[in-house]
Amino acid sequence: MNAAIIGASGYSGEELVRLLSRHPDVELAAVTSRSLAGTRVADQMPALRHLVGELTFTASDPYDLAVNPEIDIFFLALPHGVASEFADPLFQAGKTVIDLSADFRLSSTRIYEDYYGQAHPAPHLLEAAPYVIPELADGNWKDASLIACPGCYPTSIQIPLIPLLKAGLIEPKGIVINSYSGVSGAGRKVAEDFIYCERNESMKGYGMPKHRHLSEIEEQLEKAAFADCVVQFNTHLAPMTRGISTTIVVKARTSIDTLYASWEKRYAAKPFVSVLPSGTYPDTKYVTGTNRCDISAVYDSRTENFVITSAIDNLLKGASGQAVQLMNLKFGFEETAGLV
Amino acid sequence: MNAAIIGASGYSGEELVRLLSRHPDVELAAVTSRSLAGTRVADQMPALRHLVGELTFTASDPYDLAVNPEIDIFFLALPHGVASEFADPLFQAGKTVIDLSADFRLSSTRIYEDYYGQAHPAPHLLEAAPYVIPELADGNWKDASLIACPGCYPTSIQIPLIPLLKAGLIEPKGIVINSYSGVSGAGRKVAEDFIYCERNESMKGYGMPKHRHLSEIEEQLEKAAFADCVVQFNTHLAPMTRGISTTIVVKARTSIDTLYASWEKRYAAKPFVSVLPSGTYPDTKYVTGTNRCDISAVYDSRTENFVITSAIDNLLKGASGQAVQLMNLKFGFEETAGLV
Amino acid sequence: MNAAIIGASGYSGEELVRLLSRHPDVELAAVTSRSLAGTRVADQMPALRHLVGELTFTASDPYDLAVNPEIDIFFLALPHGVASEFADPLFQAGKTVIDLSADFRLSSTRIYEDYYGQAHPAPHLLEAAPYVIPELADGNWKDASLIACPGCYPTSIQIPLIPLLKAGLIEPKGIVINSYSGVSGAGRKVAEDFIYCERNESMKGYGMPKHRHLSEIEEQLEKAAFADCVVQFNTHLAPMTRGISTTIVVKARTSIDTLYASWEKRYAAKPFVSVLPSGTYPDTKYVTGTNRCDISAVYDSRTENFVITSAIDNLLKGASGQAVQLMNLKFGFEETAGLV
Amino acid sequence: MNAAIIGASGYSGEELVRLLSRHPDVELAAVTSRSLAGTRVADQMPALRHLVGELTFTASDPYDLAVNPEIDIFFLALPHGVASEFADPLFQAGKTVIDLSADFRLSSTRIYEDYYGQAHPAPHLLEAAPYVIPELADGNWKDASLIACPGCYPTSIQIPLIPLLKAGLIEPKGIVINSYSGVSGAGRKVAEDFIYCERNESMKGYGMPKHRHLSEIEEQLEKAAFADCVVQFNTHLAPMTRGISTTIVVKARTSIDTLYASWEKRYAAKPFVSVLPSGTYPDTKYVTGTNRCDISAVYDSRTENFVITSAIDNLLKGASGQAVQLMNLKFGFEETAGLV
Repeated sequence: MNAAIIGASGYSGEELVRLLSRHPDVELAAVTSRSLAGTRVADQMPALRHLVGELTFTASDPYDLAVNPEIDIFFLALPHGVASEFADPLFQAGKTVIDLSADFRLSSTRIYEDYYGQAHPAPHLLEAAPYVIPELADGNWKDASLIACPGCYPTSIQIPLIPLLKAGLIEPKGIVINSYSGVSGAGRKVAEDFIYCERNESMKGYGMPKHRHLSEIEEQLEKAAFADCVVQFNTHLAPMTRGISTTIVVKARTSIDTLYASWEKRYAAKPFVSVLPSGTYPDTKYVTGTNRCDISAVYDSRTENFVITSAIDNLLKGASGQAVQLMNLKFGFEETAGLV
Repeated sequence: MNAAIIGASGYSGEELVRLLSRHPDVELAAVTSRSLAGTRVADQMPALRHLVGELTFTASDPYDLAVNPEIDIFFLALPHGVASEFADPLFQAGKTVIDLSADFRLSSTRIYEDYYGQAHPAPHLLEAAPYVIPELADGNWKDASLIACPGCYPTSIQIPLIPLLKAGLIEPKGIVINSYSGVSGAGRKVAEDFIYCERNESMKGYGMPKHRHLSEIEEQLEKAAFADCVVQFNTHLAPMTRGISTTIVVKARTSIDTLYASWEKRYAAKPFVSVLPSGTYPDTKYVTGTNRCDISAVYDSRTENFVITSAIDNLLKGASGQAVQLMNLKFGFEETAGLV
Repeated sequence: MNAAIIGASGYSGEELVRLLSRHPDVELAAVTSRSLAGTRVADQMPALRHLVGELTFTASDPYDLAVNPEIDIFFLALPHGVASEFADPLFQAGKTVIDLSADFRLSSTRIYEDYYGQAHPAPHLLEAAPYVIPELADGNWKDASLIACPGCYPTSIQIPLIPLLKAGLIEPKGIVINSYSGVSGAGRKVAEDFIYCERNESMKGYGMPKHRHLSEIEEQLEKAAFADCVVQFNTHLAPMTRGISTTIVVKARTSIDTLYASWEKRYAAKPFVSVLPSGTYPDTKYVTGTNRCDISAVYDSRTENFVITSAIDNLLKGASGQAVQLMNLKFGFEETAGLV
Repeated sequence: MNAAIIGASGYSGEELVRLLSRHPDVELAAVTSRSLAGTRVADQMPALRHLVGELTFTASDPYDLAVNPEIDIFFLALPHGVASEFADPLFQAGKTVIDLSADFRLSSTRIYEDYYGQAHPAPHLLEAAPYVIPELADGNWKDASLIACPGCYPTSIQIPLIPLLKAGLIEPKGIVINSYSGVSGAGRKVAEDFIYCERNESMKGYGMPKHRHLSEIEEQLEKAAFADCVVQFNTHLAPMTRGISTTIVVKARTSIDTLYASWEKRYAAKPFVSVLPSGTYPDTKYVTGTNRCDISAVYDSRTENFVITSAIDNLLKGASGQAVQLMNLKFGFEETAGLV
């Protein structure tokens, strides 16, 4: 099977190139970038020199790509808004599209407009595009040919929370989430706020109280809880390249043992979720470079809350790794193919 | 005035040496350390080579120190439990003692025992020892000769919260606090968990849900609120040397403008508290190396919460800087003397 | 084929576990550690949770291992001196042994004693054990069953220099080498000098002028040059987890084009050496996590020197990755198997 | 005395603001920046919030400044070329000017043109402007009203080498220097190469073999040696905010004891140079935040070389700290005023 990465100039794009170029079941047939067309991938991504040979960025016209008979699956590593410009013709041409942008993560165009500040560019595709964290989604998403790959923060939050909300083990109201992201979460953005001397040895909040990812978090939590959720979601930058560390406070409706039993049931057979014993803590260091999400929880009898922590690599389980996992499952490859 | 630092081998001790050796109003007369007695301070603290000349660590017998007529003020940079062994004879001898340990931070020996796992070593001194964040304490603490210097996390939490609780502007119940500390918060501890390769590029929780500092946080918040407070306090390690970043979620009882008015009133004339506009965020980078606490807040109309963030240098405003500020105020020196 | 890692508790051991547990052609049959015997590998190396399942450290008696018919190849990740205790019985039993320690890197017991401060523990094996950087060694090393895997610094130095010395393109005298290592070069050593707050934001020299690796560097350069070499070798610690950056000054005997032609000839077909254009610089960031060595050079007409720079990941091409590459080549696996 | 900082928007400018705003003998009367004119310094340099009050950037017309009777001394923190536009009118008006740019560091306009790629903008001022490292310069520089403040790398190199060259204790030929700079050495430059994720965990060379600072290094070494010097100078970026670590290899003409005696004689009374015992190593961590240069040396009997290492804070002893030290000495203030 042949794959293309559209808009591969950023960090998520680079991870996709890395993962797909060594994937046993697919061939990386094209890597596109408007700004880099004509340059060698090895020159732009020197870390991949030994993997990419003479692979060269090509221009990326969506209509040309749609009629290219050689490419079966497209990964869109594009900004929101732009992703739809590609998703539409590719979808119409019957291609498989895994979109890493926010364009197909929300079911409501109104909420999209509220959070992303523009009208939804392809509302007619929303229904066709399931939002899929593979460990949590129901089976029939594999029939879809346009799949929305969830955001990084939302992945670190839903993996611990969704099973608990579905089982009614926690209060859906009053959830407080603090997340800390490595700087690569901002992409390869060249701005004063992201130069080394500004971010090194620095920890700070940003974008509160209404980070864009809040929209997909609340939609998914509500779906799981069959109830309204109004979440406090606090986002921060941490002085490291990769990783998201999330700490969640929720009101307990059950014991810590029941919480763990619920997780174990859901995740025992899942290769990319590790449930750690209560009292140990997920560490971004241990998930960096992997597609894993590590989770654990403690119960606080003083407050009757669970304190749940999780860690992922924002560029892998939070983006490109999860996208490849989606491809693996949809096409019946080994779930871990190219990911360990 | 002559000062001594007792137990100066750790990072807080080093900061005290730095601050006192360049303080315009005091002479650093003695630096003690059982393990380092006889060695030159410049050899143990090479960063201070240009400041300390031939100053040498001495042994530290509390009874000898108590009868030394040349030393007026003692800074105790000792572990809890050990601090009392010094505080008692020095206090009895009429010396001024500023204790950076936890020994005199709590008014209840029962809670001390619960959190610190040992009987309180000097309960007869508790009443004599006020707990003082200088921006928040009432005036007569300056008469005390034994002063408890607050912990690092608690300082970053009380500066934003105490004025709001006193004014009834926030709910005292259901407060959720997430704090992230640089690695120097663990002191100069030599353990596998603190070697460079384990902490670099790593973010993780620890010690939840009942970090020792919770005891002093709850006592002080309750005092301010005249109400019970049961706080969720989540502590984490961040990959940086210094700094504490704290994010607090509290239920609002007023508008953001009233919150800011309360802060402005309390802190307008305070040199070491900066109130930042709503929508900007305290950054540990900007307080590192200073005795400042930066604070700001946003109101979230979706949740009716305030989200409050603060940042301090854990070794300065969170320890040694605050200790020197206490000395300055008690003895009528310029509040900022030796601290800018 | 079944492999065992002996003394797997350090960082090199961890990398071997990672590489071998996902290697397509070998089974990781045993991981031994005296101190960790009986504990789960996943608990000691949480980063590998998804790779190692229930694998457990076993005790490591060399004579038991020697008679174990199920294990074909042993990787020794042990301190020098201790490695020989294992190498000897395993070698006598006809096993294949790849030794990552210094025990078999030198041909002279006198120099071993000079640099390592002890008599050589197994001089009778020295002749049987070739020292092999696979890109540089001649073919018949594959017949050996005991192979000395070179040190990290020496690998970063020999890959650029050996072809030039062999071809007589540079002066063998007066070579000046400066190398900078990430902190993992010291292993998982728990000592005050290696705690986070001491190494973060810190760059310094150490161990000059006679670092242990100098012995193998000089022996190998001399062999290549058929001439005496007395190298100035300056070693430093850099504030990063992984990576070695090396800068070499040598007197040129030819043009930069001839130098490049020599490198291209030697390395064009080698998957793990990248020759970068003159005027670009190897960056440790781009080799970290890979088994690659990147090299480049400039000619300075003012001094008539070449300035050569190289970068490797000290734990991969500088240790465990190279060890696996040696196994791949010896047993006729794909050279890159398990390494990309 | 009133001081102004011209072009204060970069990191050196920020350090000057910090140092001068707490200097006991001068008043910081103006801080200029074309791009920031009208904005509050506290907003642009949040780390200085507690120091700068309502101080505001002003526009910076050199002719207006020249006739301003209230300002006595000007620090130019401007790019080379631009600095001369200010130095000329200010000098003509009789003001004292300390220039941190390269404009007045070289005595030869030809070499300036060669290294800086443009004709010298004010050759008529070259003779009037001494190049001064205060620990090394002869007394009459204090009469000058235009002073060239040396570059960061050159300071770390000249402090150890100049006394040895003057005394003939080392060979002036064949000197090899490797220097590693923290990222702030590039200033507040917003470019992809300087964003956090590119520089973090990365070490690499750049700008070899002819970094601009080489010109002033060779000129000064030659002056000291009364001989030609052709230096190999290798520059690198290290993953830290501040600090320069320099390692120098020179052929010894004397013993290590004589070298140390020479240093001790020169530096015993100097508050900002620390001579460390042979076998200990300057560490950037210990000089960061100080105006100190730490130096040490070892003798290698194998090579008959000295290996000399030094460390400075590139923004202090390598720029702004040294500039303030120059002011202190010129005006008869305490040498350490405002610098400890």
